[in-house]
Amino acid sequence: MDGTEFDRQMMRRCLELAQQAIGRTAPNPMVGAVVVRNGKIVGEGFHPQAGQPHAEVFALQAASAQAQGATLYVNLEPCNHFGRTPPCTEAVIQAGIERVMVGMVDPDPRVAGGGIDRLRAAGINVVVGIEAASCQQLNEAFVHRVTQQRPFGIFKYAMTLDGKIATTTGHSAWITSPIARQRVHQLRATCDAIIVGGNTVRRDNPHLTTHGVSDRNPLRVVMSRSLDLPISANLWQTAIAPTVVFTAPNGNPLVKQQLLDQRVMVVELDNPSPTQVMKTLGDRGVSTVLWECGGQLAAQAIGEGCVQKVLAFIAPKLVGGNAPSPVGEMGITQMTEALVLDRLKIEAIGADYLLEGYLLP
Amino acid sequence: MDGTEFDRQMMRRCLELAQQAIGRTAPNPMVGAVVVRNGKIVGEGFHPQAGQPHAEVFALQAASAQAQGATLYVNLEPCNHFGRTPPCTEAVIQAGIERVMVGMVDPDPRVAGGGIDRLRAAGINVVVGIEAASCQQLNEAFVHRVTQQRPFGIFKYAMTLDGKIATTTGHSAWITSPIARQRVHQLRATCDAIIVGGNTVRRDNPHLTTHGVSDRNPLRVVMSRSLDLPISANLWQTAIAPTVVFTAPNGNPLVKQQLLDQRVMVVELDNPSPTQVMKTLGDRGVSTVLWECGGQLAAQAIGEGCVQKVLAFIAPKLVGGNAPSPVGEMGITQMTEALVLDRLKIEAIGADYLLEGYLLP
Repeated sequence: MDGTEFDRQMMRRCLELAQQAIGRTAPNPMVGAVVVRNGKIVGEGFHPQAGQPHAEVFALQAASAQAQGATLYVNLEPCNHFGRTPPCTEAVIQAGIERVMVGMVDPDPRVAGGGIDRLRAAGINVVVGIEAASCQQLNEAFVHRVTQQRPFGIFKYAMTLDGKIATTTGHSAWITSPIARQRVHQLRATCDAIIVGGNTVRRDNPHLTTHGVSDRNPLRVVMSRSLDLPISANLWQTAIAPTVVFTAPNGNPLVKQQLLDQRVMVVELDNPSPTQVMKTLGDRGVSTVLWECGGQLAAQAIGEGCVQKVLAFIAPKLVGGNAPSPVGEMGITQMTEALVLDRLKIEAIGADYLLEGYLLP
Repeated sequence: MDGTEFDRQMMRRCLELAQQAIGRTAPNPMVGAVVVRNGKIVGEGFHPQAGQPHAEVFALQAASAQAQGATLYVNLEPCNHFGRTPPCTEAVIQAGIERVMVGMVDPDPRVAGGGIDRLRAAGINVVVGIEAASCQQLNEAFVHRVTQQRPFGIFKYAMTLDGKIATTTGHSAWITSPIARQRVHQLRATCDAIIVGGNTVRRDNPHLTTHGVSDRNPLRVVMSRSLDLPISANLWQTAIAPTVVFTAPNGNPLVKQQLLDQRVMVVELDNPSPTQVMKTLGDRGVSTVLWECGGQLAAQAIGEGCVQKVLAFIAPKLVGGNAPSPVGEMGITQMTEALVLDRLKIEAIGADYLLEGYLLP
């Protein structure tokens, strides 16, 4: 169901509203809603963060009495269950909405068409699928998490045009231009957690923050089996942003205590693999994970299916040599076995390029 | 001097005509000419190949008596010296041309403004610089050769999105899609010579031909100090295209004889470095050289200033591992020392991307 051009315009407005909360709604999806009466918007709203009311509630409140006989546009099927807030379907019915235009069915098994059924049972005309592709993309992380039971993984790296993420000596500051690095800060603001390995902490001592482009920072995650980590590191400055270190039970106890003293969370897993770390993060409400790790951990994460999307920043530079490259050993010996990306996009960012694609499952 | 929109249109027509001989004119430039009288084209021509008449001569012949009082457009300053053909300036003067619109001054020291001076001395109105940037780009290889005394070098490679030109086992067929590989065949048709090293012959056994996209093939060049080369290889099939092997005086004499028996040319240089090979090729009339070699030879060629332009085909694939990458050791240890490309262009070719740029000198 494509709807009219007006319908698609209203749905795009829902997506615009929804995105105002990008990076803040996990484990919930991003949702925007618009109430239209006689061809005019009489109420708008979006879901600001988990625990807060849903988008429909804000839009209906704004429309007030004008919701009677009006059309509601919403990019995701209204919920029909009591979560932290009462079901939206009841609010829609009580407001006297006559027609509901839905972007996509909620893949959450607790909803999954139940909301639409409830609205139809109440005599409301429901159309599903307006701007469906854009709706799916906006909430790709949420969809992945509720259908696959683990967070959506994005692997981001910056390399030279000859495929190096550092020089032969490990020097990597900086590959891309300031404007591309600012784009990474913006990207971080849209993610719930960022993962690196111990090597990255030791070599690059990164901050992994949004550097002022947003007032929030994602959870910073370090995977280190050995706990062979520096006593002092930018990531241990937990007043700026929270940090959690995943390790095995036999990690260095002195380092563990030093981390805890700096309010770094330490989580011991029997097998701190990408899969187990992702599962643990997903259980804690994380939807989108950004892998900003080196090649070795990236290869593991990709191998275990923890990466869905790849963002490659490519700088027009050559450094040469047997220098580190973005992805470590994955056991691929024939070019025909290469992992393939699709739905590609390319964008010029200053002098650099950003190539984006999805790993075929 | 920009000229009028009509002037620029006529100059673009000259460039279009000139390009019909792409890959065939070395050591001469590509030149197209148009004779215009009363706002109408009355004669056109282009320089088909070295030894043949210049573009102006064909255009004036086509215009015949209508050249009297007409305007001549030509993308490069008409020559004023006897080469393999008489000077074009005299033909222009004798035809009664009143005005000459020139794209760019000929950087060839034998011309270098002399043609323009001669025309002006004969009372002809000469305007220089119409579509100058496009004219410079079309003949970038010619300009480089006559000003730098060596051929223009293009380094072309195909890599995965994680920067690999093969898997860890050396397998590389194929990185890019058939349409991108056809683009390489077209590229070869525009070049005068292609260089690879012995490793590429041993590992990939390439043809380095235009595979039917053109009726001509560039000279195929192998650099092999040791002459440790296979007895049988696609490159030794000299009935398809000529091949020359550059080697040192102490190369394996048996292999040398086997190559000569297959009509492969063997050239011994005291120091068969990229610089010396390029110099030798330049002396033999080669303007454009395509480096299709592996990382080690590429690093040498870049290091010696034998590469001006880089064409990187990037396939949306990941293979991982410590696999070969496009550029070998160049002694760069800090990212700030990276060689930088400018005048970048990117183009989607099927599922792959082609990123093109010029190395800053």
